[in-house]
Amino acid sequence: MAALTDLSRLSLNQITTQKWSVPEAVEGCLEAEIPYISFWRDKVAATGLKETARLVREAGLKVSSLCRGGWFDDATKEGRLARLEDNRRAIEEAATIGTDVLVLVCGPAASKDQDTARAYVQDSIEKLLPFAAGHGVKLGIEPMHPMYAAERSVIVSLGQANNIVKQLNHPNLGVVVDVFHVWWDPEVYNQIEAAAGTILGFHVSDWLVPLPDILMGRGMMGDGVIELRRLREAVEAAGYFGPIEVEIFNQAIWNTPGKEVLARMSERYLEHV
Amino acid sequence: MAALTDLSRLSLNQITTQKWSVPEAVEGCLEAEIPYISFWRDKVAATGLKETARLVREAGLKVSSLCRGGWFDDATKEGRLARLEDNRRAIEEAATIGTDVLVLVCGPAASKDQDTARAYVQDSIEKLLPFAAGHGVKLGIEPMHPMYAAERSVIVSLGQANNIVKQLNHPNLGVVVDVFHVWWDPEVYNQIEAAAGTILGFHVSDWLVPLPDILMGRGMMGDGVIELRRLREAVEAAGYFGPIEVEIFNQAIWNTPGKEVLARMSERYLEHV
Repeated sequence: MAALTDLSRLSLNQITTQKWSVPEAVEGCLEAEIPYISFWRDKVAATGLKETARLVREAGLKVSSLCRGGWFDDATKEGRLARLEDNRRAIEEAATIGTDVLVLVCGPAASKDQDTARAYVQDSIEKLLPFAAGHGVKLGIEPMHPMYAAERSVIVSLGQANNIVKQLNHPNLGVVVDVFHVWWDPEVYNQIEAAAGTILGFHVSDWLVPLPDILMGRGMMGDGVIELRRLREAVEAAGYFGPIEVEIFNQAIWNTPGKEVLARMSERYLEHV
Repeated sequence: MAALTDLSRLSLNQITTQKWSVPEAVEGCLEAEIPYISFWRDKVAATGLKETARLVREAGLKVSSLCRGGWFDDATKEGRLARLEDNRRAIEEAATIGTDVLVLVCGPAASKDQDTARAYVQDSIEKLLPFAAGHGVKLGIEPMHPMYAAERSVIVSLGQANNIVKQLNHPNLGVVVDVFHVWWDPEVYNQIEAAAGTILGFHVSDWLVPLPDILMGRGMMGDGVIELRRLREAVEAAGYFGPIEVEIFNQAIWNTPGKEVLARMSERYLEHV
């Protein structure tokens, strides 16, 4: 398995430097010669949508994705409609800041009934697709680790995400493969192959042993047990040669100065991904 | 969906009253009129194997299972052999205390290579089966939640467990369905159906939201989001009418007096399972 030889596909997912504002993250990427960035909507809102768009354009950075749409289900009809409407705003924001990928977190069930919630996720995505297509934005279903099934996403495996993509069969729909969420799955390599042509993103981090925390326990690449290079080569074999986002939720990393984080993640990216 | 009307299938998995010794747990079950108990090997060792066997026999309790064999993989050949040998001791212990089910935790990989570890688990089970059959003991593969993939079990779904059972096709091999480990899986009902005739145990607890802890975060039935009754009826539709173990890792419950725990679990069992 061959290492990557340069940073030309590296992307900073903004959550990795959680304390940085949009201008700080843009500046950090420029200095560290990281060509891509992925933004979070709350950070974009804090800086302003147009200002964010201007900053990245002037910096010459490419935007790999916007995080995140989804969170469809709600206990009330009004709540559900408001969430769909919020997804339309997210699609507009993605188009404005210059990315064609909106990452979807396919939210938890509003009741105990997982089946109904799963079907509702698919219906919601179907409803959004024409709007997304009209804005040149693709929706990326990111299956999440099953430990987030109750609180974040009823889509818990790449197989499930692939099924939705297959059933809806729309050019603006695909999957986002995050190693932290899928590494444990004995079907992951088959399902990456099955996702050929529909992979919209590839996210890296690592699974620490012991896992320090359910949400905040992700590690820097190389510090855990995930076969990162094998997974990267698998998505490449499936035709994905787009940006590779480093997305790490980890308080210790968030507390580290951003410049150090970018230096370390660049080094680890070349060494382990 | 119909509630259970009596406690005739209820089993106390000893971990739920972690502070109780074997004699205390046996006495507790008798007083609470819980007909089954499941033991943990460390507790059995503390009381003594023969003494444990005598206590349950005299109490007239039925033993639903022994926890736990497995943990097969190791970095060294000697380590692997020692682990296989330890599984033979566990099989003997199960036979001695009068249960025909040894629960297997299909241990973590000794390296990053999950595929090899998965194959090694299957090989190890295959090696143990003649010994288990000779002792009248069945090996129950318990798929564990994917969040334990790195530290506890490379078997993370019922589908995977079913595949091993199908491939080895041995009357002394089956699966143990624990709702905490499998509830998130969109395939769980299909796979319970596929497991018909090979289900050796059914464990209940609940998934709390938010999950308080990775290992110690299980909840009492009814306190979380798992569709317990639907899962119980699914295993029944697949032909399983054996004991239902309550297995809860939770410090607050461990700190509660055992009698209170047994009263609450009996009540919740009738109400929610």
